Amino acid sequence: MDAMRKLIERYVPIINEELDKATRGKPEQLYNAARHLLLAGGKRVRPSLTLTYARMLGGVDGERKALPFAVSVELLHNFTLVHDDIMDKDEYRRGVKTVHTVYGENMAIIAGDLLFALSFENALNNSMVPPENRSAAAYLLSKASRIVAEGQALDVSFEDTWTVSIDDYLDMIYRKTGALIEASTGMGALAVTLDKETVENAMLYGRNVGISFQLKDDVLGVYGDPAKTGKPVYNDLARAKKTILVLYAVRNLPPDESAELKRIIDMKTSNLELLKTAADLIEKSGAKKYALDLAKKYSDEAIRIIEEIEPADSEAKNALREFARFVFEREK
Amino acid sequence: MDAMRKLIERYVPIINEELDKATRGKPEQLYNAARHLLLAGGKRVRPSLTLTYARMLGGVDGERKALPFAVSVELLHNFTLVHDDIMDKDEYRRGVKTVHTVYGENMAIIAGDLLFALSFENALNNSMVPPENRSAAAYLLSKASRIVAEGQALDVSFEDTWTVSIDDYLDMIYRKTGALIEASTGMGALAVTLDKETVENAMLYGRNVGISFQLKDDVLGVYGDPAKTGKPVYNDLARAKKTILVLYAVRNLPPDESAELKRIIDMKTSNLELLKTAADLIEKSGAKKYALDLAKKYSDEAIRIIEEIEPADSEAKNALREFARFVFEREK
Repeated sequence: MDAMRKLIERYVPIINEELDKATRGKPEQLYNAARHLLLAGGKRVRPSLTLTYARMLGGVDGERKALPFAVSVELLHNFTLVHDDIMDKDEYRRGVKTVHTVYGENMAIIAGDLLFALSFENALNNSMVPPENRSAAAYLLSKASRIVAEGQALDVSFEDTWTVSIDDYLDMIYRKTGALIEASTGMGALAVTLDKETVENAMLYGRNVGISFQLKDDVLGVYGDPAKTGKPVYNDLARAKKTILVLYAVRNLPPDESAELKRIIDMKTSNLELLKTAADLIEKSGAKKYALDLAKKYSDEAIRIIEEIEPADSEAKNALREFARFVFEREK
Repeated sequence: MDAMRKLIERYVPIINEELDKATRGKPEQLYNAARHLLLAGGKRVRPSLTLTYARMLGGVDGERKALPFAVSVELLHNFTLVHDDIMDKDEYRRGVKTVHTVYGENMAIIAGDLLFALSFENALNNSMVPPENRSAAAYLLSKASRIVAEGQALDVSFEDTWTVSIDDYLDMIYRKTGALIEASTGMGALAVTLDKETVENAMLYGRNVGISFQLKDDVLGVYGDPAKTGKPVYNDLARAKKTILVLYAVRNLPPDESAELKRIIDMKTSNLELLKTAADLIEKSGAKKYALDLAKKYSDEAIRIIEEIEPADSEAKNALREFARFVFEREK
């Protein structure tokens, strides 16, 4: 993971500085609310992908031109987190209190909206690229925002039904998670080129990485070490999330165990003993292996897509290859 | 008002049809929530201004090219209404239940976000104009969204303080109301031209009209006929909104009456007798005349700006002149 780690280590402070600059304004309380989560950390995965993809295609110059786009995708990502936390009534994220917990729900709604607006303002103000590229990049961003909203609505609607197929689920996580990562790499490409195939490949790489990332997230949500992931144990199960694990298990366990699993999930309980029973049933069904195999398939596809690219910077290409592997190998 | 009325009567069905087309998708519940308020009526003031301004500068061809931008500003306007209604806990708007009342708060948050995304997607998909114009128009839209968020936060913060000057207030209503109308006419110009001065004038016209509109709105909020405005009587007073009327009155009434007015406002009461006392005090202070004179000043300035323009369509110019007068003469 050396190529990727080296790039990300260099990117994070640059991205953080730009995020800080992009979110200064008045009234102070609103901007403080908008900056609260944004500057509290975060892995900066999406903007790093934007920069790395641009660097692979256009070298250092491409990377430089992609910086405002990288900032845009992180702003957009944080907007979705702020509104998600309100909807999920979450109290903590990234080790700090959520925006609505500190500033109240109304200010958090506006702070999210502000981040959304700043995301577009930032992308459309990128004067280092021609207007064609700028407008195409902002268009990708707008499509991703729309698709993310669709994904959030699907995610919510899945909580109260069992008629969710594996395909429905994959479509939902493409929307909720894959679409913005697809835009991140697509916008990285658009900082360098308008070539249709190149941009489409960039998006496909991002889409596959994003889906693999979310599949692994589902596994970590049940089997991850809370000390590493920073998330409460059995969090997804307690919220009746129809993750890949749950969907696979209810389809592949014997009828009585499947019914038992459904019953516990539908309780939306925080009783650890019951949740442990559910996790054991899932384990028994073989769902973990199924999910990880599927994640690997998406990661392999992402790698296959970039293999064909003649890079301007081969270290960046190495980093993207490593990253596609990292998303399903990671433990946090 | 004939030129204006004739244009708007023609525009409204066209705009409504485009809004309908722009908001189809899945999941159905989300799109229904997004369409709920949007297609329940509305005066379509902002998109009509976009189309009229484009027509003045570029004739029928300009008007045609501006249609996607017109749709964008109405989508953005509705996004702000959906989130505003959640924050204000309003149950009705445009004679129908608000989105969060029907679909729940979470779905209303996402529906607002979806309208925001669709607003940009629509503008950036306007292939009738060159990418430069498209990207400049979307940039105006993004700035307006940011400024509107700032205005909403200011509006909220004003509720709990009396240290709001008339200038603070004018700045707030520019942000909350003027900025999007400024973008509406600015984007109308950008459908036709990239000429800096022309676009700036278009924005100035919209900004002045927007401020005049809001000043008159404040007056209607206290003195308007609820049967005509569709808003509850003394609505603004009951919510402790620091409108121009209240701010002027507390500064210009004798100290004891000023204190009495402040006391009633701070109660956030819905007691009609108390609110009537507050309205009488405001009346006595001369605030109504002050507000209407100020509104007229902004409207006059808007008219002055377009007088200098050599129009491609002089009927459209007439309509804009009429509209600037209408905003402060209207009774609803």
